[in-house]
Amino acid sequence: MIHIVGHTAIDHISRVPHLPEKNCSTHITDRQIYFGGGAANIAAGIAMLGEQVTLHSCTGGDFAGGDYDHWMNKLGIHQQFFRVPDAHTPTAFMFTDDHGDQMTFFEWGASRAFATSEAPSLPFVHMATADPEFNCRVAERSEFASFDPGQDVFWYTKEQLGSIIAYTDILFANQHEAKQMCTTLGITREALIGQVDMAIFTMSGDGSTLYSGGNEQFIPAVPVTLSDPTGAGDSYRAGFLSAFVKGHDPLTCCKVGTVTASYIVEHVGCQTHLPDWDAMLSRYRQHFGTISVLEQRRPFP
Amino acid sequence: MIHIVGHTAIDHISRVPHLPEKNCSTHITDRQIYFGGGAANIAAGIAMLGEQVTLHSCTGGDFAGGDYDHWMNKLGIHQQFFRVPDAHTPTAFMFTDDHGDQMTFFEWGASRAFATSEAPSLPFVHMATADPEFNCRVAERSEFASFDPGQDVFWYTKEQLGSIIAYTDILFANQHEAKQMCTTLGITREALIGQVDMAIFTMSGDGSTLYSGGNEQFIPAVPVTLSDPTGAGDSYRAGFLSAFVKGHDPLTCCKVGTVTASYIVEHVGCQTHLPDWDAMLSRYRQHFGTISVLEQRRPFP
Repeated sequence: MIHIVGHTAIDHISRVPHLPEKNCSTHITDRQIYFGGGAANIAAGIAMLGEQVTLHSCTGGDFAGGDYDHWMNKLGIHQQFFRVPDAHTPTAFMFTDDHGDQMTFFEWGASRAFATSEAPSLPFVHMATADPEFNCRVAERSEFASFDPGQDVFWYTKEQLGSIIAYTDILFANQHEAKQMCTTLGITREALIGQVDMAIFTMSGDGSTLYSGGNEQFIPAVPVTLSDPTGAGDSYRAGFLSAFVKGHDPLTCCKVGTVTASYIVEHVGCQTHLPDWDAMLSRYRQHFGTISVLEQRRPFP
Repeated sequence: MIHIVGHTAIDHISRVPHLPEKNCSTHITDRQIYFGGGAANIAAGIAMLGEQVTLHSCTGGDFAGGDYDHWMNKLGIHQQFFRVPDAHTPTAFMFTDDHGDQMTFFEWGASRAFATSEAPSLPFVHMATADPEFNCRVAERSEFASFDPGQDVFWYTKEQLGSIIAYTDILFANQHEAKQMCTTLGITREALIGQVDMAIFTMSGDGSTLYSGGNEQFIPAVPVTLSDPTGAGDSYRAGFLSAFVKGHDPLTCCKVGTVTASYIVEHVGCQTHLPDWDAMLSRYRQHFGTISVLEQRRPFP
């Protein structure tokens, strides 16, 4: 069982002819509602790839019985939710105009419950964007921890970041987040890498790099027709973690992550084009050749 | 039966610490969802006052079985809806910052169906904000028509406005809307008033004026603690129209409208504090004295 901690969120993506000035209005020409939230995206990716996954999120009174709830049940995601009936499930409103300019309004909503909830003690957990203090408590109590700070990297104090990384076995970050972690901690990139068993730094369409056991290995991206890069990082983690529990070596895990992400960026939405394991495997073979044969699964209960 | 034509809409009213610049984000500290849309507000007001009402609106795939649907059923509003499964029910997103500055994003959504739908032929109809061209067709086919252009007044061409007013028996407007109608039509205020049986011009907290049969009568507002003026105009119309079908004289109808509106502005939301007829009557008597005794209802089937 893979446990994922962090946000479940609902994304409203709207098109407008122009963004409004103060005290003005504009009209929405198209609005699509997508299932999102970093942790939920990762859990959905893992579930679709066929692994057992439990999602630890905060949801509001609008969640139970709704479309997102049904979708998670259909995927077979186990829900371990802090439910806040008088709040909304975290919701993002994004407005993009005809020039590509954007405005985003984010409602934290039910996620306020992280601050006052007891952190679970877990055999294998990935911590996505969430309340930094809660993530620190989860990391401290868990046996094997994977972590990506995401855009929340700016919210971590030096003490929180130092603490969570001390308990982290696998660290994911993009280039900006890695740089920010070094700045916050006041250490070099090499020193950051040295603090964890494995570090995977992603570089959008330019591939990713795995740092493990003193080695550095580059994994090229899979060339696809890009529709929307949102959710690429989350699906990379979903692929990596699914391959990891199966017992694949870290380099193979990175390749599985790369292939999984290549599906997501072909469509708008973070959970709209998730591959199952066979689809992933088919594209994996095209780009990376034969996948390593497995002896046994990693023993995470 | 009173028929109301126009928008049913869902209002998301959010507080933010500051409104975002282009390509920036802000967080929502509070978001409340209110039932709105001018026509739906009027229908809800009428239903709560105890009169039979049918609402002619466009709704999306998100409506049936949802909270707003349940609320309308509870009120006993008859739904005559143009349903557009692949669109949203019209939705407004309003963001207000700590300085009181606002931004509004409005999604027309399912209301696009007005343009291609057949206009009903009705014995007694009030046309609220909606598709101008559809409203014109409704007015033309109806026996007795009441009309308020609302904020949509700017969308009416001279021809449309001339046509709809030719079929209008009762005209409602606030001062800005009355002025805009005169500008669009190129006529004086007196000429506009002369085109309809009754004109009622409202002046927010400063009361309203009834123009009927060559006479002009002023109706003072009911002094209350103002919480939110939104929906005041809609509830005035609900009160007026309810009293009108009962058979009250136009001046009494204006007073009932004034009293009904006084309840609405005491609370945030357009349908959150609707009075029933007895509550309305109680406040009416305090402010305007005895209500006129009725001989018989107006014969609208």
